[in-house]
Amino acid sequence: MRYFKSDNYGKKLVFGNMIPTHTIEQGNYNEVDAYEVIGNIDVKDGCIIWDIPLRPTDSVYGLGESVRGMNKRGFEYRSFCSDDPNHTPDKQALYGAHNFLIIHGASPVGIYVDFAGEVIFDVDFIKSDFLQIRVSSVDVTFYIFEGSGKEIVKKFRTLIGQSYIPPKWGFGYQQSRWSYETAERVTEIATLFDEYDIPCDAIYLDIDYMERFKDFTIDAKAFPDFEKFVETLYKSGIHLVPIIDAGVKVEPDYEVYEEGIENDYFVKTDEGKPFPAAVWPGKVHFPDFLNPEVESWFGEKYHKLMDLGIEGFWNDMNEPAIFYSEQGLKDAIEFAEQQKGKNLDIYTFFELKDRILNLSNSMTDYKRMYHTYEGKKVNHLDVHNLYGYHMTKAAAKGFESYDSNKRFLMITRASHIGMAKYSGIWTGDNHSWWEHLKLNVQMMPGLNMAGFVYSGADTGGFGGNVSPELLTRWHQFSLFTPLFRNHSAMGTRPQEPWAMDAKTLSLIRDVIRLRYALIPFLYSEFMAAVLENKLLFAPLSFFYSDHYSRSVEDQVMFGDGIMLAPVYTQNARGRMTYCPEDMVLWKAENYESLSKDQLTLLDQGHHYIDLNLSQIPIFIRKNKLIVLVKPKNRVNDLDLAEITVIGFVDTVAEYTLTNDDGFTKAYETLKTKFTVTRKTEGFSIQVDTNDASLGKATFYLIDGDGAVQVTVQEGQDTGISMV
Amino acid sequence: MRYFKSDNYGKKLVFGNMIPTHTIEQGNYNEVDAYEVIGNIDVKDGCIIWDIPLRPTDSVYGLGESVRGMNKRGFEYRSFCSDDPNHTPDKQALYGAHNFLIIHGASPVGIYVDFAGEVIFDVDFIKSDFLQIRVSSVDVTFYIFEGSGKEIVKKFRTLIGQSYIPPKWGFGYQQSRWSYETAERVTEIATLFDEYDIPCDAIYLDIDYMERFKDFTIDAKAFPDFEKFVETLYKSGIHLVPIIDAGVKVEPDYEVYEEGIENDYFVKTDEGKPFPAAVWPGKVHFPDFLNPEVESWFGEKYHKLMDLGIEGFWNDMNEPAIFYSEQGLKDAIEFAEQQKGKNLDIYTFFELKDRILNLSNSMTDYKRMYHTYEGKKVNHLDVHNLYGYHMTKAAAKGFESYDSNKRFLMITRASHIGMAKYSGIWTGDNHSWWEHLKLNVQMMPGLNMAGFVYSGADTGGFGGNVSPELLTRWHQFSLFTPLFRNHSAMGTRPQEPWAMDAKTLSLIRDVIRLRYALIPFLYSEFMAAVLENKLLFAPLSFFYSDHYSRSVEDQVMFGDGIMLAPVYTQNARGRMTYCPEDMVLWKAENYESLSKDQLTLLDQGHHYIDLNLSQIPIFIRKNKLIVLVKPKNRVNDLDLAEITVIGFVDTVAEYTLTNDDGFTKAYETLKTKFTVTRKTEGFSIQVDTNDASLGKATFYLIDGDGAVQVTVQEGQDTGISMV
Repeated sequence: MRYFKSDNYGKKLVFGNMIPTHTIEQGNYNEVDAYEVIGNIDVKDGCIIWDIPLRPTDSVYGLGESVRGMNKRGFEYRSFCSDDPNHTPDKQALYGAHNFLIIHGASPVGIYVDFAGEVIFDVDFIKSDFLQIRVSSVDVTFYIFEGSGKEIVKKFRTLIGQSYIPPKWGFGYQQSRWSYETAERVTEIATLFDEYDIPCDAIYLDIDYMERFKDFTIDAKAFPDFEKFVETLYKSGIHLVPIIDAGVKVEPDYEVYEEGIENDYFVKTDEGKPFPAAVWPGKVHFPDFLNPEVESWFGEKYHKLMDLGIEGFWNDMNEPAIFYSEQGLKDAIEFAEQQKGKNLDIYTFFELKDRILNLSNSMTDYKRMYHTYEGKKVNHLDVHNLYGYHMTKAAAKGFESYDSNKRFLMITRASHIGMAKYSGIWTGDNHSWWEHLKLNVQMMPGLNMAGFVYSGADTGGFGGNVSPELLTRWHQFSLFTPLFRNHSAMGTRPQEPWAMDAKTLSLIRDVIRLRYALIPFLYSEFMAAVLENKLLFAPLSFFYSDHYSRSVEDQVMFGDGIMLAPVYTQNARGRMTYCPEDMVLWKAENYESLSKDQLTLLDQGHHYIDLNLSQIPIFIRKNKLIVLVKPKNRVNDLDLAEITVIGFVDTVAEYTLTNDDGFTKAYETLKTKFTVTRKTEGFSIQVDTNDASLGKATFYLIDGDGAVQVTVQEGQDTGISMV
Repeated sequence: MRYFKSDNYGKKLVFGNMIPTHTIEQGNYNEVDAYEVIGNIDVKDGCIIWDIPLRPTDSVYGLGESVRGMNKRGFEYRSFCSDDPNHTPDKQALYGAHNFLIIHGASPVGIYVDFAGEVIFDVDFIKSDFLQIRVSSVDVTFYIFEGSGKEIVKKFRTLIGQSYIPPKWGFGYQQSRWSYETAERVTEIATLFDEYDIPCDAIYLDIDYMERFKDFTIDAKAFPDFEKFVETLYKSGIHLVPIIDAGVKVEPDYEVYEEGIENDYFVKTDEGKPFPAAVWPGKVHFPDFLNPEVESWFGEKYHKLMDLGIEGFWNDMNEPAIFYSEQGLKDAIEFAEQQKGKNLDIYTFFELKDRILNLSNSMTDYKRMYHTYEGKKVNHLDVHNLYGYHMTKAAAKGFESYDSNKRFLMITRASHIGMAKYSGIWTGDNHSWWEHLKLNVQMMPGLNMAGFVYSGADTGGFGGNVSPELLTRWHQFSLFTPLFRNHSAMGTRPQEPWAMDAKTLSLIRDVIRLRYALIPFLYSEFMAAVLENKLLFAPLSFFYSDHYSRSVEDQVMFGDGIMLAPVYTQNARGRMTYCPEDMVLWKAENYESLSKDQLTLLDQGHHYIDLNLSQIPIFIRKNKLIVLVKPKNRVNDLDLAEITVIGFVDTVAEYTLTNDDGFTKAYETLKTKFTVTRKTEGFSIQVDTNDASLGKATFYLIDGDGAVQVTVQEGQDTGISMV
């Protein structure tokens, strides 16, 4: 093993010659003779096993998209991009492979396992009181970071590159369904948003918009004159976001297939033939995105849809998901045939069942696949976790070559560390379970640590039938996630905002309008998190060191100034909440009803908070401000003509709201700085801005004694003290 | 429709002539002309649909074994006994059909739907703000109860008959595993309990003890000289509890099969032939337990094992679970064959997958099955929910005919209202998920309402791998459930108390020893609940009317004097708890360490309770007592030689501890009454007993001001005031 150190980023431990992931290519690491490694690393039977003792008070954060709590102790996780639509608590792997974690205790340590294949993280589960990292290879690189939780995140995130920034409309409400199957239906959805006066910026097209599920084609019957359709919606402020799947349909004369065959662009069998698998289109081949030539070729295919006016995509099925392979199906059917007429013993019956069930995403198939990577033939299993990453990188390169100064919306399902440079992610096929709303909350900090700041779950849940109450509560949390998309599966209860009942429609409209009122603030916080390599969502213990903060699992810090404590249980009319310091509770209901009565000063400590179904608890830290604007039905229409600032000002509170055009890469061109100072009597307010749209500002200010004062100020850069 | 009233029990609403369930055959109902029915009942398309408006503050309790919270609002449940080993939150039906619920609000109403087929309960889910009951027939009887929650439960439980009482050893710790496959292994398990000094009273035998899964046979190779083996364990105080499955193996010369064929005892096809299904033994027929002759015949088969010394059984697979039917398998294999060599479109592939998957427990198969019930040929679907009930009734009748004054242990998986007279239930194949520990807590009150007082979940979880922490926390809750059984599935991480690590072994041993210390008290509370038709586990709102109590979903009342607030989340070192009145918190750790410091007076209100992994929070109500004895390793060895009373005595607290021989039906023959009266200084204590074993009693008494006093008293019936 070889030892490296970097002045700014920490240590690196290199075993053998790993297949490069190119996730970290900077940091100025210099080789050193040795250094002390925590725990014990063994090389055994071709595997590397790293045992690190955990103290009782250590939390383990990270591992990105994974089940269970923010503190990952108590389970064994598997880093292996998996298309699994049942996110029960025993699922070791979901769609992302995010090998970064932080042991957060007296002296925090961050570890990134730089490896393209499967990695196992036993976090105090089978091996009690230990973190055990198992890599199925003797070629791997570990990065080790030290410092506070925040410092470790900053170092790691700096190394993996600046996280993806979507166009500003990507912060708007996004409506999806598998599927809105015709242009007419999509138009109807768009119209209903306007009729119900609900803000919305995007509608998604799931697989049925394609012609026989062929990437980069349009079903001309369901979507006649697609270009005009896109344009009409675009003019009304609605962006269409079509899906792109990893597998390319095997169909003669289908351009993408023919070019792929011609240029030998597909993932291969051991014999060098295109590997035949089946996904939505039936028989497909998988583009070998790991080959830079394929990356360019596939990336440019996106131009076809961009030429038709499309500005956003979602990449799916790129773990890659395989429903079955030709060989696998043949074997299973043959096995079934052999059982015909037999009086099966029960284990043979189970085998029959398993053979059919295990056709999908089988390790046997993955083992049969080969890539050309770094000029060499590489088995798929050795680079499995890079596949979705490279598909999305291909798309991002395609965007770059189409218009290098424009932002495009991009979310993807499979992901890997390093991919966050190119795309956001949604958290895949969750369910309409209260447990998955909680999981959504708990997953956000880990996703942010892995670089995925632009992220969110399918609001309301993808699988299963949602209840009006769950749909409402889920919206109340997604209010804060950068990606705020309502998506659901075929055959489930429709869950558009109006699909339940009048009461629910009204509640959800209020939430979405509040979202739009908050978008300038959320966007500003998002940009700070991305550009300064911070967490947008963090565990409380990243801010507070007391032992309660360490164990809180159902509250998160948002940005620098807010704590969220969402309601995530059925029939609840309130919840217990821990305030790590004195905080102002804003029981938000909707933009219009904001009043002094919704603001209360809470002491440090535990509190039961009564919350009707309409109430969203937002906790403001001391000397912090929140900014709201008047909501509009499109992100583009938002401005600072009428703003509201809510502040908990004990001494001085400053906040700089940043803004920009929302679609080019010139970030944070507009800045509005608010400074509120508590005086013996009341407050003084200073606003400095280069944003010409700033009009009237109303301040709701609470001082450390809980007194609330409402002040209105007109114009900008006035520097006028409160009247 | 016809209207009936009973002076003592309420109303009855009769539609047509339902297939009788014989669950209620008393109550002195008299026909009346009409009465006002809440909500609206429609007869439409051969179905009865009853819509009952729910007020925002109404809770809906009941529905026995079902997913989700104690308050059932927000989901649609299906009453249809189902073998489903994945209790995710979207499962509408589990193993039991428990058509009893209470709308608990300003004027509570209880409803029992007396019907043997499928019933749907939409509780404020698809139909917002309504309870909708849908019966797929025009022949059904509804019972309607009024009064307080407790009164409604008492009326209903009185009508359905006194709940099952197990032998007292059924309150001991019970160890199970699918499977301990040999006598040697079972003996080793028994020995390990003694070696580790962990109390235990029973070890379960799962399906592998049988010869080729044939009911009432023993695998002579794995269990040579079964009778002697049973006797040896019995002498050491360990009861063996073998499993009995519903399906009878089709095997020439197998007595049960041959007799069933000979006497035409099996469930039939439409053509009158024994219905061929496959379960564990491969091909089976199902005894038609609904036929009284079959009931007697099958019940007496249990004698075979009782003759070998067995005193307890568990009935399984009696929904009935069907892995596949001959016809179903044939159809599926043929469908698979037809796809051979074809380039499947994806929907055909899904159909292939579904055909294989849906072979198990298919409605098509159930529809093909026929019973002889009440002398008529009845389709299975019309009496589906009675099947497991009647299997277990058969067993109970068998016990009765074997020894009518002896209690036998009996738990069953499938169940129905009315069955609680004959048996307890375990809650089926749960998982090692924290969510299922919570579900266990939330399910107990509903099970009790349906009459199942002797019940509990598989402690530690049946499916999946348990973590040491979850295993510990689950034991800490099961400490209170009458059935306290650790059971897990083949292929999962072993979860016997010693299977984790030394720390966990020690923690679990402490919990089990505490269980044994509490058994006299738990048994006394259990007997009161059964004999007085009360809940052993109740929602807080059955005791307190404030709005917080109404919405608490993770705390339960136990008996009359205790509130439980178990820890059910990963990595928690405490939890929020609501005290509806001033309560004494006992942070129990183990029997030996009991001290004044573990007792704290808490004010009415919300509290955060710090709880290490070793601490079990037990809340004692005002003027209530808990009694402990010195733990032993077998229930039989427990006596009152050394008892400890913990009491929260503001004015006067009385508690009568009842006891009996534990195995005959002479209940509550022994009574020990404790009376503690608070005096100006300290307390006076009176103990009256007819239990000769009563020796030294130590009292930990806390007054309403929180002062704790420890007093020791020797002997019985002393009437001596505290020294």
